[in-house]
Amino acid sequence: MPELRRDLIHDTWVLIATEQALEPKYFPINRNGTYVPKTKICPFCDGNESLTPPEIAAFRHDNSGPDSSGWIIRTVPSKFSAFKLQGEFAIEEKGLFSHCSGLGKQEVVIGNSNHSIDFHQFSADRIGLVYRMFQQRYQALSADSRIKYIQIYKNRGLFAGASQEHSHSQIVALPMVPKHKRNIIGYYQEKGRCLICTLMEQERQTGERIVCESDKFLVLCPYASRFSYETWIIPKRHCEHFAGISEEEIKDLSMTIKRLLNVMLDSLNDPAYNIVINTSPVNVPYKEGNHWFMEINPRFIVSNGFEISSGYYTNPVAPEISAAILRKSLTEFKPSM
Amino acid sequence: MPELRRDLIHDTWVLIATEQALEPKYFPINRNGTYVPKTKICPFCDGNESLTPPEIAAFRHDNSGPDSSGWIIRTVPSKFSAFKLQGEFAIEEKGLFSHCSGLGKQEVVIGNSNHSIDFHQFSADRIGLVYRMFQQRYQALSADSRIKYIQIYKNRGLFAGASQEHSHSQIVALPMVPKHKRNIIGYYQEKGRCLICTLMEQERQTGERIVCESDKFLVLCPYASRFSYETWIIPKRHCEHFAGISEEEIKDLSMTIKRLLNVMLDSLNDPAYNIVINTSPVNVPYKEGNHWFMEINPRFIVSNGFEISSGYYTNPVAPEISAAILRKSLTEFKPSM
Repeated sequence: MPELRRDLIHDTWVLIATEQALEPKYFPINRNGTYVPKTKICPFCDGNESLTPPEIAAFRHDNSGPDSSGWIIRTVPSKFSAFKLQGEFAIEEKGLFSHCSGLGKQEVVIGNSNHSIDFHQFSADRIGLVYRMFQQRYQALSADSRIKYIQIYKNRGLFAGASQEHSHSQIVALPMVPKHKRNIIGYYQEKGRCLICTLMEQERQTGERIVCESDKFLVLCPYASRFSYETWIIPKRHCEHFAGISEEEIKDLSMTIKRLLNVMLDSLNDPAYNIVINTSPVNVPYKEGNHWFMEINPRFIVSNGFEISSGYYTNPVAPEISAAILRKSLTEFKPSM
Repeated sequence: MPELRRDLIHDTWVLIATEQALEPKYFPINRNGTYVPKTKICPFCDGNESLTPPEIAAFRHDNSGPDSSGWIIRTVPSKFSAFKLQGEFAIEEKGLFSHCSGLGKQEVVIGNSNHSIDFHQFSADRIGLVYRMFQQRYQALSADSRIKYIQIYKNRGLFAGASQEHSHSQIVALPMVPKHKRNIIGYYQEKGRCLICTLMEQERQTGERIVCESDKFLVLCPYASRFSYETWIIPKRHCEHFAGISEEEIKDLSMTIKRLLNVMLDSLNDPAYNIVINTSPVNVPYKEGNHWFMEINPRFIVSNGFEISSGYYTNPVAPEISAAILRKSLTEFKPSM
C-alpha cells in the first residue's frame, strides 16, 4: 500500500508510491533529456481500450458498449495510480515519523481517441464535454466521505511531467486538504471578503496584467506569477466548487481556453504546460469564502537547487510583460477552427 | 531592479527577475527537451576569465593575478544574477500586492578550470577547497546585516536546472529567511531538543535508511524522501551554521561525498542532481537549535500538475529501498581515485 509520509523539515507530504518502483534506467528522464515512455502501444487510442483498466465513465456514441471503440470522452482508473481507495484514513506516528496510507483515487480523463489531436485542437464543444466529465467525476468522488480534496490537472509535454503523449487530464481524490488550498478561505475568515473577488477588483484598476475578458471569465497573469506566462482563468461569479460551474460557464470557458491555448502555443514556441484547477475542500466542516479558478502554467524552466531549497520561485518574465504579449497575440490571432 | 513578490494564494515568494527577460525561443528548454545553453564559449574554462565579471575571491597558484589563468578555485558574481546588493530591505504593500526589492547577491564558485572534469571526479582535496571557499564566502556575506540567509547549492545537468555544463556551485545571499528554514529551530523551541540529533538517534534504531557512516557524518535516505534516492549527509556534531564546519569535518565530508557521488552516478545511470546545504539564518535575533546538513537530490522526474498544485511530492522509490541499494553499491565500489 502506498503511503503519504510527512516531511517535518520541509513541511510537506510525500507520496511514497512503492508500487511504481522503477529501476533507475526506466525513470522517465535521464541526464541528457532522453524520454522513456511507459508503454510502446498507446493505451489511450481508439481500439486499445483493453490496455487500460475497465472504464469508470464515458460519453459514447449510441450503441457502443463499455471498454469498446466508439467513445467520445473516456475516464479510466490510472494504471500507475499511487492511491488506493480502501480502508479508513488515519495518521500513524512513531517518534518523528508520521504517515498515513495513500487512501485516494487517481483517474485519467481521455478527451479524444485520436492520438494526434492535442487539447488545443479539440473543438470547443469537445472541450466542454471534458469539463462536463470533470464535473461528473468531481461529484461522484465527493460522495465518498473519506475524500477531502479533488485535484484536477493536466500535464502536456515532458517538461510538464507528462508520461503519455496522447492528450489526457487527471483527477486525484485526496484524503487530506493540501495546506495552501486553505489560503483563500483563510483570507475570507480573516477579512470578511473573498480574496479572488478582491483580486479581480484590484487588477481591473490598472488592467496591466489582464489578458482578456469574456462574458463569464477574467483572464490574467497573476502579480506573483511563479511561472513565465502563468495565466489564470477566473470565473467572475463567486462560486466555491469547480463542480458548481454552470452550463453557460462551461460553454464560455471552453471557447476562452481554446483561444488562449492556441495563442500561447503559437506565440510561445510550443511550450510544455500544466493546467490545474483550484477548488474547495469537500467533506470537511464548511467554511465559506473559497472561489474556484484555473491556472495554466507553461514550463520553460526546470526548478533548480535554489528553488528546491528555498521554496521560492524564479521567473524571468514579469507578468506585466507576459500579459501584454498575450493580449497583443490574442488581437492578432486568426483562428483556423 | 528585480523584485520578490508575494504569492498570497500559494503562500510563497517569487523572484521576478526582469533583467533576465528572455524571448520564449531563448528559454533554456523547449517542449522536446532541446537544451539552449546561454553562451557558446564556456566562461568557466581556463583562459576565459574575462568572460565572467571580475572575481570576488580565488585560491590561486603563486604568482597568478586576479582574473587571469592559474587558479584552483574561483568565485565570481553571477552574470545572470537575479539579485542586487543595494538599498535597504523593505516590504511594500499595495492592497493585495506585496513585494520587496531583490536585495541580495548571487555568486558562482567554480571548482576546476577544466571543463571536462565533473565534481565527483575532483580529488577529495579539491572538494575540500570548494568547501573552504563556501565557508569563506558564507562568512563574508554574513557580514552584511541586510543578509538573512545564505543558500549554497549546486545544479548538475539539465533536469537539475543547470544552465552551464562546466561544474560549478552557487551561493545566494537572501534578504529573508525562507519559511521552512525555520522548522528545525521551531522544533527545538517547542520540544527543547534538536530535531536533527533526534532524527539520527531514531534512524539508528532500525538502520534501514542509513547508507553509511564516517567518523564525522551520518549518511541516510530520509523517511519522507521527496526525490528518489534523496540522500542527506548530516554532521554528527550539533553545529548550527555550515560555516562552523571544522577542518577535520571538511576532510571527512570531502571523502564521504566523493565516494557517495561516484556510487550514485555509477549505480543510478548518471542522473542530474542538486546538492543543497541547509543552515541557520544570519543577522536575525538568535534562537538556538538549528543543525546544518546537506541534501543530495537526484532528479529523475519532472514535477507535474499534481505536485505543483498540491505542494506534495511523489516518489516511486521508498527510501528503505534506495538506502539498501546505495549501501550495497558502496560495498562493491572500487574507487579509481
